[in-house]
Amino acid sequence: MKKRILIVGGVAGGASAAARLRRNSEDDEIIMFEKGPHVSFSNCALPYHLSGTIQSANRLVLMSPEKFKAQYNIEARVSSEVLYIDRENKEIEIKDLLSGEIYKEKYDKLILSPGAKPIVPKIKGIENINVFTIRNVVDIDRLNKFIKDLNVKDVVVIGGGYIGVEAAENLIKGGYNTSLIEATPQILKPFDYDMVQILHKEMVDHGVNLIVEDKVAKFEKDTVVLASGKEIEANAVVMAIGVAPEVELAKNAGIKLGETGAIAVDANYKTNDKDIYAVGDAIEVYNALTHSYTKLSLAGPAQKAARSVADNINGKVTANKGYIGSSAIKVFDYNAASTGLNESLINTLGMKINYDIVRISTNDKVGIMPDSAPMHFKLIFEVPTGRVLGAQAIGKGDAVKRVDVIATAIKFKATVEDLKDLELCYAPPFGTAKDVVNYSGYVASNLLSGSFKQVNVDKVRDLVEEEAYIVDVRGRMEFENGHIKGAINIPLSELRERVNEIPKDKPVYLHCRTGQRSYNAALALQNLGYDNVINITGSFLGLSFYEAYNDKLKTREPIVTNYNFK
Amino acid sequence: MKKRILIVGGVAGGASAAARLRRNSEDDEIIMFEKGPHVSFSNCALPYHLSGTIQSANRLVLMSPEKFKAQYNIEARVSSEVLYIDRENKEIEIKDLLSGEIYKEKYDKLILSPGAKPIVPKIKGIENINVFTIRNVVDIDRLNKFIKDLNVKDVVVIGGGYIGVEAAENLIKGGYNTSLIEATPQILKPFDYDMVQILHKEMVDHGVNLIVEDKVAKFEKDTVVLASGKEIEANAVVMAIGVAPEVELAKNAGIKLGETGAIAVDANYKTNDKDIYAVGDAIEVYNALTHSYTKLSLAGPAQKAARSVADNINGKVTANKGYIGSSAIKVFDYNAASTGLNESLINTLGMKINYDIVRISTNDKVGIMPDSAPMHFKLIFEVPTGRVLGAQAIGKGDAVKRVDVIATAIKFKATVEDLKDLELCYAPPFGTAKDVVNYSGYVASNLLSGSFKQVNVDKVRDLVEEEAYIVDVRGRMEFENGHIKGAINIPLSELRERVNEIPKDKPVYLHCRTGQRSYNAALALQNLGYDNVINITGSFLGLSFYEAYNDKLKTREPIVTNYNFK
Repeated sequence: MKKRILIVGGVAGGASAAARLRRNSEDDEIIMFEKGPHVSFSNCALPYHLSGTIQSANRLVLMSPEKFKAQYNIEARVSSEVLYIDRENKEIEIKDLLSGEIYKEKYDKLILSPGAKPIVPKIKGIENINVFTIRNVVDIDRLNKFIKDLNVKDVVVIGGGYIGVEAAENLIKGGYNTSLIEATPQILKPFDYDMVQILHKEMVDHGVNLIVEDKVAKFEKDTVVLASGKEIEANAVVMAIGVAPEVELAKNAGIKLGETGAIAVDANYKTNDKDIYAVGDAIEVYNALTHSYTKLSLAGPAQKAARSVADNINGKVTANKGYIGSSAIKVFDYNAASTGLNESLINTLGMKINYDIVRISTNDKVGIMPDSAPMHFKLIFEVPTGRVLGAQAIGKGDAVKRVDVIATAIKFKATVEDLKDLELCYAPPFGTAKDVVNYSGYVASNLLSGSFKQVNVDKVRDLVEEEAYIVDVRGRMEFENGHIKGAINIPLSELRERVNEIPKDKPVYLHCRTGQRSYNAALALQNLGYDNVINITGSFLGLSFYEAYNDKLKTREPIVTNYNFK
Repeated sequence: MKKRILIVGGVAGGASAAARLRRNSEDDEIIMFEKGPHVSFSNCALPYHLSGTIQSANRLVLMSPEKFKAQYNIEARVSSEVLYIDRENKEIEIKDLLSGEIYKEKYDKLILSPGAKPIVPKIKGIENINVFTIRNVVDIDRLNKFIKDLNVKDVVVIGGGYIGVEAAENLIKGGYNTSLIEATPQILKPFDYDMVQILHKEMVDHGVNLIVEDKVAKFEKDTVVLASGKEIEANAVVMAIGVAPEVELAKNAGIKLGETGAIAVDANYKTNDKDIYAVGDAIEVYNALTHSYTKLSLAGPAQKAARSVADNINGKVTANKGYIGSSAIKVFDYNAASTGLNESLINTLGMKINYDIVRISTNDKVGIMPDSAPMHFKLIFEVPTGRVLGAQAIGKGDAVKRVDVIATAIKFKATVEDLKDLELCYAPPFGTAKDVVNYSGYVASNLLSGSFKQVNVDKVRDLVEEEAYIVDVRGRMEFENGHIKGAINIPLSELRERVNEIPKDKPVYLHCRTGQRSYNAALALQNLGYDNVINITGSFLGLSFYEAYNDKLKTREPIVTNYNFK
């Protein structure tokens, strides 16, 4: 039976649903309505236009309405705003934004994929400033032309999420003085505070005027005034503090919203109306790790949901396994990726889950290869089950690979024991025989078996202040080039002969550069009868990144004589 | 109780076992015996010395005996050949190769990690030629000095395994005329014949004189003479046809060997003597996919086995889940990775397993990013269960990541359905919202559900000869730039209006550039009543690579007017 299927929104979710609907049936009539002038553009690539990485804004548009018609026999009506859903009569009211004409269309099934809109708060004096948002090709083209044509010098990005950070990076590469203002203490929430310092530092090193823990108080002419009183010149301001799901249309039609404020859907992305589905940034999805509904503005899940909807409309039921949320970002020379739970999310949600972490930095490839660099890695796992809950990786090398492996493992409810056994590809240009993923499994299982104790780098400042007994087991030269104030240098190679120097009546804190030598030292001391040995998780590399950026920021006394980031 | 543990061999397996033994106990006496002058060097990185990527041969040595002593309290005796194992008295006989002295040492536990030696067959005239092998730092240093100091021009590498190919690449980069001779029709057996053509072409494009299906008949002065009669100048010859496990010592002591000829071990790497363990390239391991024992010369598994042995000696039992074999190689600008079963292995072993394949090439990252390139991907899965058996990926981008994900999935007995659901990290610099891994899951599940049929690129030559009906659904310009001879061009965008041109009474073969448009075309035709539609797996990109290299090699008539590799 021929069906008439209407789709509201023609980007990731809408376009994917339409194409899949056509593959399922040649007969169905499929019409997509898009408010903007373009369907199927690459949202995620928008910021790359600012640097010229993607030269022409037209390149961002992937499919034209003509191509949709010719290739898929799908009608895509652009500049068409859907005003109202009449559920009783199963029809929608559309406004042609070019002609102003308002008309109606009947549907058998309706798919809502309206997306989410950038939030622009009513800040005092906003009329004094040139404010931009980045949602679609028109937006980015407008911003790019403005700053280029008017020879703009100073641009301020407000908000340190993915879009804000990508915008800032591409603005710097485009040659603009760029500030990034973030109200909370850190950018990029998928990364924990201890990990994200690497990216804070990378932003600053590349010239971004990064300001955290400060927010916009008001705008004056070409100036952003912060709560701290700081004033920043700004010929253009990019608002990237977040997005809000487009729910007005659904809400007005009596479609149920969830607790998050986004559209609520069942396992097959059906709303409370059996003929209306919803996908993409406008809906809330089930997080399989937090066991709660959440807004997840990611293209992959949107496409998966769209496919599921198209299949469901054609009588197929696909399993909904929920989502874990995997994401990645390039920040200048660093690659960063995150999946599953992180500490900050667990705390924010007040999740009652017992967990521990592994924080290590190993070589991303064989150490003697010329481009070998540290891979900073954090694993979060449940205690005592060992179940893997999440991971974050940041480095100049292949961080995404490591996190994709963990994302895959989490889908299969892997434990840290499983991570040890993974057979990952090894060749000197790509990795090490024992990858950081395997290594994290070993460390986690040692923690679970109680074979060693640890403390995180964020506690080292306290340890220094209380004059704790800290042993640095790196070599003498490494120690001289920079060390924790008050730490005692006993290189691993001298540990056994000098063991009598180490007191048995107080906690012994150990660290090296990456955590590998101090792990050996910790086990040696324990086997030699020390029963209160604590490894500093993250070691000197982790500490350097953790403290350096904050020192700069807070003009406080450094706890290290000299940092080392290599 | 203090134990005395002796280890034969001080590289990957031996050194890892020693270090783990020390972490398990401070008391045990641990002595490693290594025939060569170095312990713990990076075998896998050896070829990179030939190009100067790793400048000094000394850099390849990771740990000195002094460092082993100081850091781990482990005695490493180099230039020490173990001559004999007296199992009755639990002692070994050692020859100090420097002094010539022969002496004995008692053991409580003995670990054998002697490795494998390069095979040098007795080819006629071998005395006329400068033959080298690549096993250790001494070897590579000797080879490098020879070709550098004597200004050698022509080097011939015999054998197209990992070491041979890496040696050839690094010799080319070092500026030498380099030939690679491989007796079988292809190099690099972890890759199937259809996939490896990409690497054959890459070798040739970078100046390697690659000769397959031909072998060395004899050597003459500075000349390699092949069975075909071809003569190749060679001032130096690198023998890399394979390695044989070092089993003499074990065999002479009555240690049981397996059917592969390597040392047989139990689940905890114990030999038939309860006090003797063996690890590394000298043993055979259980392949969890072929359900048979195999030799696996990989560093990762060697280190895992070593750790397991050290733990077992200290009373712990670790689960042995067998191995699947994951490996990777960089071949000039291409990255290539493989895991699990491939078609050639299934056929070679005569495995009674029912399988099918997915062969696709998608963009490795968002197509509009400047460095986006095709990712050639092959998935092997069981029919009808859908269980994932193996994968190969080759491309200029991150092939290793995709294969690591599959390797992880295989460990959890994933099906192709699971691959659809994987949440991999996406950002424009790293991938696409639907990764090739997800995509392969979709295609495989379509194959399992019978929703479309396929034929591999290696059958296209036959199809052309029998004048099969082949439809090329790419655009007109793409078609004009090169197409299969006799193919009819009906762009996807014209398919529906021109459908009447397509006959219903014979098989319709479809292809496009990567397989994505032809997949849409195949489903459209089926939905329009065509019941014998067959997609050409690999499409034009796959066919170009598949045929181009062989055309060059076989001077046969091309079946394509012009190839396209982008």
